[in-house]
Amino acid sequence: MLIGSFELRGKDLLGRVGKLYTKSGFLETPALLPVIDPYDPIVEVNDLSVKMGFQGIMVNAYLLRRRAGDEVTPLRDRLGFQGVISTDSGAYQILEYGEVEVTPLEILEFQEAVSTDIGVILDVPTGYDLDKSRAKWTVEETIRRADLSLKAMTRKDIVWMGPIQGGVHPDLLAYSAREMSRRRFNMLALGSPTQVMERYMFKTLIDMMLTVKMNIPLDRPVHLFGAGHPMMMALAVACGFDTFDSASYALYAKADRYLTSYGTYKLSDLECFPCVCDECVKHSPGEVRAFLKPRRVRFLARHNLWVCRQETLRVKQAILEGRLWELVRQRANSHPALYQAFKHLKDYCRIFEAYGTPVKRRGLFYFSHEDLYRPELRAYREKLISEYSKPRGVRELILIPAPEGKPYRKFLLENDVPYQEASSRHMCFYGVPFGVVPIELDDVYPVSQTEVSDREEEESIRATAPTVIRYLEKNDYDVVYFLVEQDSYWRRLSSRLRLVQEREGKKFRIVRFKENPVKRLKEILETC
Amino acid sequence: MLIGSFELRGKDLLGRVGKLYTKSGFLETPALLPVIDPYDPIVEVNDLSVKMGFQGIMVNAYLLRRRAGDEVTPLRDRLGFQGVISTDSGAYQILEYGEVEVTPLEILEFQEAVSTDIGVILDVPTGYDLDKSRAKWTVEETIRRADLSLKAMTRKDIVWMGPIQGGVHPDLLAYSAREMSRRRFNMLALGSPTQVMERYMFKTLIDMMLTVKMNIPLDRPVHLFGAGHPMMMALAVACGFDTFDSASYALYAKADRYLTSYGTYKLSDLECFPCVCDECVKHSPGEVRAFLKPRRVRFLARHNLWVCRQETLRVKQAILEGRLWELVRQRANSHPALYQAFKHLKDYCRIFEAYGTPVKRRGLFYFSHEDLYRPELRAYREKLISEYSKPRGVRELILIPAPEGKPYRKFLLENDVPYQEASSRHMCFYGVPFGVVPIELDDVYPVSQTEVSDREEEESIRATAPTVIRYLEKNDYDVVYFLVEQDSYWRRLSSRLRLVQEREGKKFRIVRFKENPVKRLKEILETC
Repeated sequence: MLIGSFELRGKDLLGRVGKLYTKSGFLETPALLPVIDPYDPIVEVNDLSVKMGFQGIMVNAYLLRRRAGDEVTPLRDRLGFQGVISTDSGAYQILEYGEVEVTPLEILEFQEAVSTDIGVILDVPTGYDLDKSRAKWTVEETIRRADLSLKAMTRKDIVWMGPIQGGVHPDLLAYSAREMSRRRFNMLALGSPTQVMERYMFKTLIDMMLTVKMNIPLDRPVHLFGAGHPMMMALAVACGFDTFDSASYALYAKADRYLTSYGTYKLSDLECFPCVCDECVKHSPGEVRAFLKPRRVRFLARHNLWVCRQETLRVKQAILEGRLWELVRQRANSHPALYQAFKHLKDYCRIFEAYGTPVKRRGLFYFSHEDLYRPELRAYREKLISEYSKPRGVRELILIPAPEGKPYRKFLLENDVPYQEASSRHMCFYGVPFGVVPIELDDVYPVSQTEVSDREEEESIRATAPTVIRYLEKNDYDVVYFLVEQDSYWRRLSSRLRLVQEREGKKFRIVRFKENPVKRLKEILETC
Repeated sequence: MLIGSFELRGKDLLGRVGKLYTKSGFLETPALLPVIDPYDPIVEVNDLSVKMGFQGIMVNAYLLRRRAGDEVTPLRDRLGFQGVISTDSGAYQILEYGEVEVTPLEILEFQEAVSTDIGVILDVPTGYDLDKSRAKWTVEETIRRADLSLKAMTRKDIVWMGPIQGGVHPDLLAYSAREMSRRRFNMLALGSPTQVMERYMFKTLIDMMLTVKMNIPLDRPVHLFGAGHPMMMALAVACGFDTFDSASYALYAKADRYLTSYGTYKLSDLECFPCVCDECVKHSPGEVRAFLKPRRVRFLARHNLWVCRQETLRVKQAILEGRLWELVRQRANSHPALYQAFKHLKDYCRIFEAYGTPVKRRGLFYFSHEDLYRPELRAYREKLISEYSKPRGVRELILIPAPEGKPYRKFLLENDVPYQEASSRHMCFYGVPFGVVPIELDDVYPVSQTEVSDREEEESIRATAPTVIRYLEKNDYDVVYFLVEQDSYWRRLSSRLRLVQEREGKKFRIVRFKENPVKRLKEILETC
C-alpha cells in the first residue's frame, strides 16, 4: 500500500475504523498513541506493543533533539519499538513555555534524520487565546511554516501531518483547515485543544472539531493533539478524528490520578479498583497508596494505558456494529459537560448525514429525545417528507398510534383488523421517533429495527409532531382519522394537526380511545 | 461477630456495602455468587477466589444430593473453596421441570449435613405465573414449608434465607415479604424473577424488588435469585439487594455469548474484545471462534466472570462515594428497557429518601429531568417547602436566575451587587434543579456541590416550577421581582407564578433581561 494512504474498514457517524499505512506498517484506527519519553519511559516500550496492543507511539522530537544533539540514531533502533513511531515537533512546548530554541527547518530535518514514520511540522499553536488578532497570526504563521517545511522535505516515506490552528475562533479554524487541506499533507491534525479539554469545554471542542471536519475532505485521516482521556474518545471519534496522542496516562499517574472511561479518580478516593486489568487485579488501592512514588506512578500509568486501550477497542467495536451513537450517549452520561456536548451534536446532524450511514447489523436503541437527531432516525423523517408520496388514489388517512411490536402491521394481523395496501384508505402509524410510518414502509430500515424506551415521553412527542404536520401538509387526504389515546400527550397536539388538515375544507376526525385502539379502528373501517 | 449478622460500611439509595458474617468468614456485599457444578466446574474453584476475588459461590444442593446420594462430604472439603459456600434448594428446578424428587425436610437435612454456610429452604417458586390463585398457592405453600423447615433446623451456625414469592403480583409479594420477615431468617431472598429478567421486564422487576423492600425491615440482607447479568446489577443493588447468584456466566458462555456491563454480544458479532481481562488480552475473537467448544466455553465463562467481578467493584465504589444513582443512570443508557426502569424509580422516590442518604464526598451530577428525583435533590425541594420559612421581616423577594458558578452569591460579589442577609429584601436564586435557593442557603449541601448540565432543559424547568409556586404559596412576600431572561422557558411560566403571587393583592413584577441580569438587578435594588 502507498505510504500515507488510509483504507476504510467501517464507519459510523463521522467515525471510522481504518488502516493508515506508514513505512513501518499500518496503524489501525482509531488509535491512541502513548507519548513516550525515550530517556525515561514509565512503561516498557515492549509491553506497550506486545502486551497492551498499542500499534503506535509518539515521541517528542523537540525534546529528543535537545538531549540527543547531533546523535541521530533512528527512532526504531533507539526505542526498540516494533510498531509505528510518530513524532511531535515541539508545538506543545511553545504553548507551555512561549517559545522553543529550534527552527521549523531544524526540527523537520531532525525528524527525517531519526526516520520518523509520522511527523509534523513545527506550527504555532493558538491555544486557548481569545485575542483574535494574535490567534490569526498563529494561523498565518503556521501556514507560512507549512509551505517552508513542505519545500524542504526530502523524504517521501514519511507521513506528514498538516496542523490546523485557530483555537476557539471558528472562522480562523475554517480558514486554517481549508488552507492545510489544499497542501500536500497525507494527514491533518487539530492543534492545541488541550486547554479547552482541561476545562471540560467539550461543547466548544465539538465546535472546533466539526468546524475542521466541514472544511477538509472527509476522507482525510485527522489527528487530535493531546486528547488522552478515554472518557471523551468516543465523542472525538464520532466527530471524525482518527488518531490521538496522549501523555495523559503518565501525567495523571504522576498526579496520583486513576483514569476510567467515565471519569478520573484520585487514588486517595478509591476503595477498590473497578477494573480487571493486569495491574488492578493484583493490588488494592491501599497497597498502591503505600508504594513508593516511582512504583506507584508505574502502576497507575500502566492501568491508565490499559483503560485507554480498552476504550479504543470499545469504540472500534461500536463503529463496526453501527452503534457509536449509543456509546457516545453512554459516555455523555459520565459527566454533565460531556452530556451538554452530546446534546450539541444535533446542531451538526446534517454533516453526520452527509457522510452516510452503513447498513447496521444490530437494531437501534431509542432512549430519549436527544436520539431523534441520530442520523438514521433523522434521515428517515427527512426522506419521508422529501421523497415519499402517498399511494395513488388513496383519499382517506387513518393515523394509528405506533404499537409496541414490530413490524407494526403485526398488530393489525393479531387483532383481526383487515387492511389492504391498495385501498382508498391509507393506514399509517404515527409516533416517536418516526413521525409517520405508512403501513407499506413498516419493515424498511430502521423502522422495524428500532427499540424505543418510551413512546410517550413528552419532549420526544413535541419534537416528532412537526414531522406529522409536514406529512399532512405534503400529502393531500380528503379525510384524516386521528386515533388517539385519551391520556396521550398527542391528544394535546391534535388541534395543531387539525389546523393543518382543515385547510381548504379537508376533514379531520379525532377518534379517542382508552388503552386499546382496535375497537375504534374497526368502527372507522366499517363506517367509512 | 454473630453468624448471620450484617455490618454496614456504606450506603447509597437502598444499596449498601456491608459484611455478612457466616461460619466460614464474611462475605463482602454487594456480592455475586457464581453457581458452580461441583462435578464439572467450568472455571477452577481456586481461580474464582484467589485470582478473581470472589468471596462466595453457590452450589445447587438438590442436584448435588441427587448425584452424591448419601455421601455427605462437607462442601468445603469437596470443593476446596476457601470462601463462603451457599446452597440453593432446587426451587429453580421446580420452576423449570415442575417438580423435584425431594421433600423440604430432606433438602434441609442435606444442606446441614454438607455444612453449607448459607442455605435456603425448598420453596415453591411462583415464576412468571399470571394466574393469581396458583400464585397465591405458591406463596402459602412456601410459608408452610418455611415453618416446617424452621422447626426441623438443628444447626445454628448456618445463615438461612427466607424465600419471598408472589411473582408479579404486588399484594402477594407484599404479603409473602411480611410473613417471611416475621420468621427467624437472618436473610431474605426474592425468588424466581428469572423469567421477568429474561424478558428484559426491568420495570416489572423494580416493582417486585421495591414491593419486597417496602415490606421487610430495610436493614435485613436480601438475596436476588438468578440475577447474573452485570448490566442490571447496579439497578438491583440500588433497589436494596445485597447478594446475587448466577449461573449466567456459564449459560451465556455455553451459548457463545460474551457479557459486558452494557449488554450481551454474540461471539460471532465481535470484531475485537472490548475488555482487558486476563482472557481477552490473550486472544482475538477470531481465534476464540476457532477454539473447540470446551475451550471456547471456558474462555467465555472466565471472561464473563471477570466482567461480573468488575461490575461488583464498580458498584461498590459507587456506593462508597455516593454516586450509585449516576452509575444506575449510565447502565440505564445501555438498553431501552433499563432506561424505562430507571425512569420508573421516581415513583419510589419516597422509599429512597426514607432510607436516608450519606454525606457525599464528591459532587452530584445533574444531567436531565430524571435526576430531579434523585433523593438528595428531591429532599432539598421537599425540605425547602416543609421546613424553611423566609427570614423574619423581609417583605420583598427578588428571584434571580441561578448563575453558573458556585456558590451562587459569588455571582453577586463578582458583579458588585450589594446584598445583606438581614435586609427587608430577600434575594433568592431560582432554577433547575432546586427550585428556589434562598441566598443564605446557597452553600448548604447539595446546592453548591451539584454540577448541572443544562439549566434550560424544558422538561427540567417544567418539573421544577411547582417548587417555585409552592415556595410563593407558603412564603408571604408583599412584592416579588421575577428576573427572567427573554429567551428562557421560565418566561413562559411566569404567568403561573403571577397567579399565585397576586392572590390577596400581593404584587408580582416581571423584570426581563437579555443575557446578563446584573444591570436590571441593580436597578431593582436602587428603586425599591
